Amino acid sequence: MPFAMSQAALPVFEIGLDALSAVLNKAESYATAKKIDPAVLLRSRLSPDMFDLVRQVQIAADQAKNGSSRLAGVEAPRYEDNETTIAQLKDRLAKTVAYLKTLDRKAIDASADREITFPLGPEKKGLMNGADYLDHFVLPNFYFHLTAAYAILRHCGVDIGKRDFLGAVPVKVV
Amino acid sequence: MPFAMSQAALPVFEIGLDALSAVLNKAESYATAKKIDPAVLLRSRLSPDMFDLVRQVQIAADQAKNGSSRLAGVEAPRYEDNETTIAQLKDRLAKTVAYLKTLDRKAIDASADREITFPLGPEKKGLMNGADYLDHFVLPNFYFHLTAAYAILRHCGVDIGKRDFLGAVPVKVV
Repeated sequence: MPFAMSQAALPVFEIGLDALSAVLNKAESYATAKKIDPAVLLRSRLSPDMFDLVRQVQIAADQAKNGSSRLAGVEAPRYEDNETTIAQLKDRLAKTVAYLKTLDRKAIDASADREITFPLGPEKKGLMNGADYLDHFVLPNFYFHLTAAYAILRHCGVDIGKRDFLGAVPVKVV
Repeated sequence: MPFAMSQAALPVFEIGLDALSAVLNKAESYATAKKIDPAVLLRSRLSPDMFDLVRQVQIAADQAKNGSSRLAGVEAPRYEDNETTIAQLKDRLAKTVAYLKTLDRKAIDASADREITFPLGPEKKGLMNGADYLDHFVLPNFYFHLTAAYAILRHCGVDIGKRDFLGAVPVKVV
């Protein structure tokens, strides 16, 4: 089995987004147990000029969706950024994972040398070959927002650990 | 150019650790400007049961060093975890980046199917093939601690942004 682009992308995103969904379940249980309005958690942020939990979850999902779509050479669906509840955020994550399963793995595998163009802020564009785009843009951004979402909840007191962050990774423990 | 394990590992770690070193420079400048003892930043954490900045930096470097070494099939050097200053943490990052440059890329490229054994906590061990170990263990852990270090400093008020986190990624901006 050679090392393939699709393998370094799709299952990574699926496991990460599923893990984030399970972390959101723990956040919901925590809010219920502590009698906290879940909206307090959803609007929490680590710094006044960082995104809140809702936006971190939206961007983590979009990095996976848009990054994989560009590598596969297809137009990604656009989701409205209008989630206001944990249930809605979990729907977005599930919808994104289901979408990732529709992408053509062979098209992604063939994208290492293809030039990818992607938006960088409101006016500029970035150009990278497919391999660099995955390794040096999509994966670091995906993990940045996944970790930020996790860290916001842990900062708020939700009882989660590294295993919750990693999710169902294919490891045999002995 | 096919997609290679070494390419998805070594330059990713080097760019990430160099970026973290530059972030630590900004932390030092911030401490000086605000007349804060840098040790306050180094001992900061996002939650009482999360690691402080020193440990986040040490682990980020060790994930890169130990993960790459296992993929290359060589014994990693061990570093004492005794840093108490920003300068010492930057030395550790620089030492790690220099070490990564000594590893055999071809050995890493050939490791996708090789079984990798690695410690999971004090008593257990994990088993994964090389590709899964890189994609589902080393990279998520590396980015987790890199992001946590960045988030601690941003939470403390250091003026850093996503570009500081990403570092010198090979992108052409148009």
